Amino acid sequence: MSNRITNFGAGPSALPEEVLIEAGKGLLNFQNTGIGIAEISHRSPEFDKFIREVEENMRTLLQIPHGYKVLFTQGGGTAQFSAVVMNMLAKYRSREGMASDQPIMDYVVTGSWSEKAMKEAKRLGGGTVNVVVNAQTTSVDGKKIFNHIPNHDSYKEKFSQDPALVYYCANETIDGVEFSDDLNSPFSFPFNALPEKAPLVADYSSSFMSRPIPCIERHAVIYAGAQKNIGPAGLTVIIVRDEWANVMDSSIPLYLSYKTLVDSRSLHNTPPVLSIYITGLVLKRMLEVGEQNGKAKEQALGHYAECAYRKASKLYAAIKEGEARGIFKVGGEERLKEFVSGADRRGMKGIKGHRSVGAGIRISLYNAVTEDKVDELIRYMKEFA
Amino acid sequence: MSNRITNFGAGPSALPEEVLIEAGKGLLNFQNTGIGIAEISHRSPEFDKFIREVEENMRTLLQIPHGYKVLFTQGGGTAQFSAVVMNMLAKYRSREGMASDQPIMDYVVTGSWSEKAMKEAKRLGGGTVNVVVNAQTTSVDGKKIFNHIPNHDSYKEKFSQDPALVYYCANETIDGVEFSDDLNSPFSFPFNALPEKAPLVADYSSSFMSRPIPCIERHAVIYAGAQKNIGPAGLTVIIVRDEWANVMDSSIPLYLSYKTLVDSRSLHNTPPVLSIYITGLVLKRMLEVGEQNGKAKEQALGHYAECAYRKASKLYAAIKEGEARGIFKVGGEERLKEFVSGADRRGMKGIKGHRSVGAGIRISLYNAVTEDKVDELIRYMKEFA
Repeated sequence: MSNRITNFGAGPSALPEEVLIEAGKGLLNFQNTGIGIAEISHRSPEFDKFIREVEENMRTLLQIPHGYKVLFTQGGGTAQFSAVVMNMLAKYRSREGMASDQPIMDYVVTGSWSEKAMKEAKRLGGGTVNVVVNAQTTSVDGKKIFNHIPNHDSYKEKFSQDPALVYYCANETIDGVEFSDDLNSPFSFPFNALPEKAPLVADYSSSFMSRPIPCIERHAVIYAGAQKNIGPAGLTVIIVRDEWANVMDSSIPLYLSYKTLVDSRSLHNTPPVLSIYITGLVLKRMLEVGEQNGKAKEQALGHYAECAYRKASKLYAAIKEGEARGIFKVGGEERLKEFVSGADRRGMKGIKGHRSVGAGIRISLYNAVTEDKVDELIRYMKEFA
Repeated sequence: MSNRITNFGAGPSALPEEVLIEAGKGLLNFQNTGIGIAEISHRSPEFDKFIREVEENMRTLLQIPHGYKVLFTQGGGTAQFSAVVMNMLAKYRSREGMASDQPIMDYVVTGSWSEKAMKEAKRLGGGTVNVVVNAQTTSVDGKKIFNHIPNHDSYKEKFSQDPALVYYCANETIDGVEFSDDLNSPFSFPFNALPEKAPLVADYSSSFMSRPIPCIERHAVIYAGAQKNIGPAGLTVIIVRDEWANVMDSSIPLYLSYKTLVDSRSLHNTPPVLSIYITGLVLKRMLEVGEQNGKAKEQALGHYAECAYRKASKLYAAIKEGEARGIFKVGGEERLKEFVSGADRRGMKGIKGHRSVGAGIRISLYNAVTEDKVDELIRYMKEFA
């Protein structure tokens, strides 16, 4: 498909072309049932088998431990901002010998998404929000920005003793900062500083399925929208440890209840069948690509992590070189526009920054952005210089 | 596509083949942008233009009056069971000179879906549920069933004077009953019995876009999942009168707030882009098919209503004939199985009844089930006899 351009956008993001071609066939005829995937009953044996395979492949790729459920729902991160609060508070209230009538929710704020989540917890009430750290800072031109991950020292004695939840966002797409997945780095999430039983909640929307999740067994809830690495918008994946999904009360709307999802195996009502289908095709392909690169199934994500590392390193090197030669930082608005429109003409799109942080360049290297596409971008950057 | 079978299922249901072929192309390249529809930014000018056209075409087809918003969201009817209660109660509480501290919500229960909605309102609390009528009855073999729409007399003096909402479901797919759209019929919704200012909420999930909505201007909220006539599961459409979508408070999770959707024009977070796309293609096609059948744009739905009427009449006539000859009612379990598997072999699927009401045959005639498919089914029925 020579007319396909390269999508460096932050999301929805590029998907593998092979998958899109197969999905087009599935729209007309899902696995030789004679019915398209968007038309088939979600209670048909064919779809049931399919969704179980999607779950199984996700478990294999992420090495999800026993005792966790994988749930499929809708509403994206925004729905989960509220859902985690409602479900975790209900669980907290259900405990015998509850430590406090006003549960505390610990939020680690490192960017726009975790800030939104924290604000939703405050707005909903039902507990007190404790901002463990807030990495917001003021830029040289006086703007409030997020531009760094605080180091481990910043969390000292900041976590609550018996919180209803501890919340963080693994990767902040708007601001371009993420926790290191090297646990020895002071910029990884401070798992060791957490009180032993504190239920940890992570928004993994933008790095989901790009690399293994560090300390996955330390989490109570991990959620992610599909629209970055694995599928079309409209599917939200929740990975929840059993004990955090067994309480329901009248404070939780039916659709946001984890227990409802667990009890119905994600089929309480019609799931987003088409998004699940494409996600399933992507995961299957990830396992195949892993295998082609000599990885066992359990290690297939490692291949993608290595690719991501290579792509990012190349790009950073090129940016550094560019900076050293005064291309990017000094350029100003006009030069920026010129750079973006030049990229556009060369079929490289989505490199403009998020509307909420104003101008600037943002390049997202999701799984489906292949290494040769990055090389192409770098060639253009050098040419532009 | 000779390998496509006919889907008589109650939902997700058949979609027009032409649309599915076009959607397959759009997956790879949306409107010559070089980016697939599942990959393109929902904030791109191309998608923005597209979603506005979807809204415009929906407004034209349904003749939605001024003063209403058309919203696109996720979560299906189940999310709306809670959302309508939360939004309408917040609105009620916001009124000056509020009539009562414990608002009353009137539910008209004519089948399994409205019963579920009513139970969710009860479970959530925040108001008192008044079941205006409950059409549940006991079958000859002692089962609780819904099998009829109560006549207008049944509602006399049953509606509350100042309810926070009045709720009904236009078409109950599980039980196979629906309100007549002939306002002169005693089995239409009793619009005239409603207190003048009572805000009316309708679940139109299964008949949405199969015919015009009677007394559309009398409704405060109409909602529908896309997965019956217009698109894949994963998209929910809400039509709401402005005054019922201008209040937000801490009782409403961000994602379920109508005001949030209105303020962001349905783009508060990433919408289900792919489902909106296919819905857009279906609506465009409906306008074209209407035109081919001599209908003005505003009358295009009339064409589908006429088709639906013809298809249903044919089928009812055939069933009556079958009953008269003792085929269907007397058959019993074995005969039923034989009928279903015979249909299956002939490429006609989805005719088994809903799991929650046990056995039986259910045939759904959504827009994409064409008249000749119904003829084929009738031929088989006669053969089977």
